[in-house]
Amino acid sequence: MNDQIFEAVVTTVSSAGSPHVAPMGVRYQSGRVVLMPFKPSATLDNILGSGHAVLNIVVDGRVFAGCVTGRRDWATLPAERIPGVRLACALSHVELRLAEHLDEPQRPVLHLERVHEATHSTFAGMNRAQAAVVEGAVLVSRLHMLPPEKIEREMAYLQIAIDKTAGAGEREAWGWLREAVERHQARAAEAAR
Amino acid sequence: MNDQIFEAVVTTVSSAGSPHVAPMGVRYQSGRVVLMPFKPSATLDNILGSGHAVLNIVVDGRVFAGCVTGRRDWATLPAERIPGVRLACALSHVELRLAEHLDEPQRPVLHLERVHEATHSTFAGMNRAQAAVVEGAVLVSRLHMLPPEKIEREMAYLQIAIDKTAGAGEREAWGWLREAVERHQARAAEAAR
Repeated sequence: MNDQIFEAVVTTVSSAGSPHVAPMGVRYQSGRVVLMPFKPSATLDNILGSGHAVLNIVVDGRVFAGCVTGRRDWATLPAERIPGVRLACALSHVELRLAEHLDEPQRPVLHLERVHEATHSTFAGMNRAQAAVVEGAVLVSRLHMLPPEKIEREMAYLQIAIDKTAGAGEREAWGWLREAVERHQARAAEAAR
Repeated sequence: MNDQIFEAVVTTVSSAGSPHVAPMGVRYQSGRVVLMPFKPSATLDNILGSGHAVLNIVVDGRVFAGCVTGRRDWATLPAERIPGVRLACALSHVELRLAEHLDEPQRPVLHLERVHEATHSTFAGMNRAQAAVVEGAVLVSRLHMLPPEKIEREMAYLQIAIDKTAGAGEREAWGWLREAVERHQARAAEAAR
């Protein structure tokens, strides 16, 4: 029985002051936010270095699709109570302080305490196209591990929700994912020749 | 280019005073909420009869899965400014008044004005299992139109997000959907014998 995992975006800042934007599954436990960033990763280095992170609650599929297709430069604003940044497009954000660090060979477990939270926009409801973009982004991040038929079949299935329920943002995000899939399939066909 | 469609739950009340709970795709246009209930439907009758409806923003997959598997009796609370009810589990709700009614043979278009809105809980972020439950509920509502292989394949695909990211609520909702699929497949096998 696993806990519920939410797809959010974690923003951190390096010791040199560069912001880093990373979509990530998060869990909530006893009011704390639990992250399991991969080793090595900029998110892990930045949280261990600064002791802080910001959890961004985001529904703009472009951030999820963008981060797996080389578009990581999303507008940020300064955090209010901690050193750090939050995404400008976040519906809400939570400013966090590292409270506990359980080291593990692959994915250390970080427990972070809430220092401050703020809401910026209303959540308008679930949108099937936003969810399809998140699934497509997961797929694109695993292209090298998947057979071409599975990729084609899942993209075709997700396309249905895009066609029926997307707005302009989801269509743009979906276009980036389709391009990435096409580039990958073309390279794979080339390599097989 | 369609507008973005959100999966929400519309609550209405009949002339006899019975509440009715219906998951439904909604659009937002110039601040108004646009509904296209099917003809005939209790939601359409109730809105035309009372002139009011409540839009409930919900992420609890049990409501979506429950309403397509015969579980429509969700706890409601009185609306604040209009005659009507809202779902007790809504993250937020909008109380609406019918402003415009374009009759159509299959799906009339209803434009509703916002009278009042209130937020009750924080949106915790996108959850892949919640989205899978919504997709599963769409599938279950269309079982009679789909070939058994397609049903099996899509349920197997959606199961992945359930296994990886569900909490107890999504697991319960998913169980209802699986039962409905199994009942349908058993009846279809029986009929084919």
